Amino acid sequence: MLIKQNTDYNLTSDDTKIHKSAILVDCEIGKNCIIAPFVIINMSCKIDDNSIIGPYNVLERGVSVGKNVTIAPHGVFAIDTMIADNCFFGPHFSCANDKEISYGEHGTSPKKLPYIEYPITFERGCTIGTRCTIAPGVTIGQGSRLDMCSFITKNVKPFSHMRGTNELVAKLIRTMETRPDEI
Amino acid sequence: MLIKQNTDYNLTSDDTKIHKSAILVDCEIGKNCIIAPFVIINMSCKIDDNSIIGPYNVLERGVSVGKNVTIAPHGVFAIDTMIADNCFFGPHFSCANDKEISYGEHGTSPKKLPYIEYPITFERGCTIGTRCTIAPGVTIGQGSRLDMCSFITKNVKPFSHMRGTNELVAKLIRTMETRPDEI
Amino acid sequence: MLIKQNTDYNLTSDDTKIHKSAILVDCEIGKNCIIAPFVIINMSCKIDDNSIIGPYNVLERGVSVGKNVTIAPHGVFAIDTMIADNCFFGPHFSCANDKEISYGEHGTSPKKLPYIEYPITFERGCTIGTRCTIAPGVTIGQGSRLDMCSFITKNVKPFSHMRGTNELVAKLIRTMETRPDEI
Repeated sequence: MLIKQNTDYNLTSDDTKIHKSAILVDCEIGKNCIIAPFVIINMSCKIDDNSIIGPYNVLERGVSVGKNVTIAPHGVFAIDTMIADNCFFGPHFSCANDKEISYGEHGTSPKKLPYIEYPITFERGCTIGTRCTIAPGVTIGQGSRLDMCSFITKNVKPFSHMRGTNELVAKLIRTMETRPDEI
Repeated sequence: MLIKQNTDYNLTSDDTKIHKSAILVDCEIGKNCIIAPFVIINMSCKIDDNSIIGPYNVLERGVSVGKNVTIAPHGVFAIDTMIADNCFFGPHFSCANDKEISYGEHGTSPKKLPYIEYPITFERGCTIGTRCTIAPGVTIGQGSRLDMCSFITKNVKPFSHMRGTNELVAKLIRTMETRPDEI
Repeated sequence: MLIKQNTDYNLTSDDTKIHKSAILVDCEIGKNCIIAPFVIINMSCKIDDNSIIGPYNVLERGVSVGKNVTIAPHGVFAIDTMIADNCFFGPHFSCANDKEISYGEHGTSPKKLPYIEYPITFERGCTIGTRCTIAPGVTIGQGSRLDMCSFITKNVKPFSHMRGTNELVAKLIRTMETRPDEI
């Protein structure tokens, strides 16, 4: 059976399409953007022109998204994350902006929001592969590329190509495989 | 307080249940399926009989799902992914079908959709554990099983049992732990 | 353009706020809780007082959440997961409660729900970082802390600080880097 259901968008005067299921709380959206179904954009967020926020993304308070940014589904963007122009994010992006939560240093009495913040920054033209994770306070330099499943805990220099944890593992494995014969 | 809220499904003439919040865009759904809340199924997708698409799954354009397939919540299925009959997917499945995005080879000016596609194929009877990730163009052979958190970048032969990156890590760790005494 | 859309909550007589998009199926919710947008809470779940269930979380059947628990977005909590008071979960939490599915031991004919269950337990005051994954049947001891991207397959003693797979990898890498000179 061919089925069509629940596909309505609202169109703003700025040629921006916002799906009716999206939750937007006092945020600013530029021209010619697409806000997909089931998106949550919290207060004080700002999305600049020509950007696409894919389904199920949640932008916490104060996230700033530049022009021509595309974000694939299921990302979580922590408070005050800064994304410059021309960035791309694959699906299932995740991050944190609170070192105590992220690194488990606060003992048995968990803190409530708001956190102490160590915001994350993406400079112009970064490409972030599927299922990448970024630790609090990290800056990803201009034009950098992170492969699928990278887990980045330190700043990344401009125009880097990171394979994160996984590439290091792969390198180790190759080393280990040849070691027995060497010894 | 006991609460019940917003649990309505539409029932088609084919005994298929589709939750009212699901977004379906010109797709074909078989008999006796369940389409859970907050699902997105894009145009040209085809779901065959007796399959269950769990909550928050997004099936991009042209995804094909066989009979008796179960997909747990929060998966992302890239364009033209082919899933044969009797497959199971644990929660948080993710993948990509664009090598340039996935492997970060396109420089500082991110491409927009549509991507160059390297679709992913799951042959009959695959079992995919929680939080697995599949790289572009990969085929998972018939009856194969991927453990939790596997990250698969190459084709998998039929009836394989993969533990992906993590098992290799575990193996390495065991090796390292015994090495000091050996040397 | 400044935008506000679709932000309505229902307020219960217990000072609990439940977003109108949330799906709740015969579950029990305590006082002064927040149930965020796009949450799914299945039958026989019980949420105790002062807890926050963030957006896109799915609590499968019979999940029990204590007092003062905060769960960040996009988590999946398997059937009968038990979360004691004062726990915190970062975004993208995932788990499984079925060893056969999780570890791929059931051959080519995937089982349907209900699974054989090996529920997961979080004792009081656990802090679970971003993107952690827990295997079936595991207990995380009181006051334990899991760092970002931890993958935990065995019970964790009370007041542990785990870095899971990733820390072991980091340790290995440091070892490997110094080994050539040693040998």
